[in-house]
Amino acid sequence: MKTKEMIDKEFIYVSKDDKIDEVSIIMENSKKLAIPVVTDDLKLIGWVTSLNITRGLRENKEFISEIMGQKEEVFYLHENDPARLAVIETSKHKLMSLPVLDDNDVVIGVIRSFDIVDTLSSLYEIKVCKLYEAMENELKGVNWEELMEASALLHRRTTGKKTSPKDYEKNIRSSTFGEAIWATGGLEKFFAGLITVGELVIARKVGKSKK
Amino acid sequence: MKTKEMIDKEFIYVSKDDKIDEVSIIMENSKKLAIPVVTDDLKLIGWVTSLNITRGLRENKEFISEIMGQKEEVFYLHENDPARLAVIETSKHKLMSLPVLDDNDVVIGVIRSFDIVDTLSSLYEIKVCKLYEAMENELKGVNWEELMEASALLHRRTTGKKTSPKDYEKNIRSSTFGEAIWATGGLEKFFAGLITVGELVIARKVGKSKK
Repeated sequence: MKTKEMIDKEFIYVSKDDKIDEVSIIMENSKKLAIPVVTDDLKLIGWVTSLNITRGLRENKEFISEIMGQKEEVFYLHENDPARLAVIETSKHKLMSLPVLDDNDVVIGVIRSFDIVDTLSSLYEIKVCKLYEAMENELKGVNWEELMEASALLHRRTTGKKTSPKDYEKNIRSSTFGEAIWATGGLEKFFAGLITVGELVIARKVGKSKK
Repeated sequence: MKTKEMIDKEFIYVSKDDKIDEVSIIMENSKKLAIPVVTDDLKLIGWVTSLNITRGLRENKEFISEIMGQKEEVFYLHENDPARLAVIETSKHKLMSLPVLDDNDVVIGVIRSFDIVDTLSSLYEIKVCKLYEAMENELKGVNWEELMEASALLHRRTTGKKTSPKDYEKNIRSSTFGEAIWATGGLEKFFAGLITVGELVIARKVGKSKK
């Protein structure tokens, strides 16, 4: 995934010669806390946050050029940079948003921190049963009932609590990947649990075929 | 994980009787785009963003009470709410931050969207080899070399590209979970691939023991 797949293309931009009070109204109406400053052909030359605006208004400045952050100080990404970089930059520099440029320094969009939260959280919201379905598809000759039986058995072994295969199924249909990794104590542990289920179901299958 | 484990406790707050221009300076110096408005005993009564401030300055308002969002309109969470809710609210309502309250409506901290990005991204940054190590630990009697051999073999089967077990190992030591799920086309597919490795390594083991 590249940064250009995460951008908001309907972004607002201003010129360095725009008046501060007018830009202020635009930002309030569009609820934007930071916007790029561009040339007539949309090349990035600066960045204005609502905190630059409050200072400008308080100090009776007139034009955006007097208060904007210069391009050299702006965190921006190239459209073909991996989307992962947007995540890393946002988190490292505590950014609320950052502009994305093409080869000609033209701003083609903006990535916002809550859009990143949205993208990252969609991973967390995947239902655990989807992973079991992937396991059922991969392990040829193993069916869903066998998976649930093995899981319920393993759940009892590790927690001491008796759970029926039906209850186990109900649980994984309602719980998400995010909940599961927090509940099991991390990705590695969650994953190790699933591997153990896979191993157990194969062992039980081999055991049955010997009878 | 609960919201209280994600909060910034060193947050800035203001009173409804504070002057707008003074709060403006505080927010600029601390680089805060939104802060809670509280009573003398720190109970939440409102929320001020830098966009409320720009409007207040432009319209010559004097006090925070004239421009703040009222408590009823503020998105906030309880300290014992699951951290997941902070992720969901931020993403759904495009928030940059939200206050967290205790049982007495006292603000105990603030969660910011880039802190959430930070927390979520730490999951993405786990190295793929950690998952292989979890697999090695779980699958008793299977060693690391066998895992790498099976993976290299499977990689060749699915991509057609010849990879040595050593190269495969180098690859999983440098690549992250985030890169891997984007590269394989999603969590389910990534996970299915690992399950197949587990199955193959067991099959190869059974095959060898028969000889």
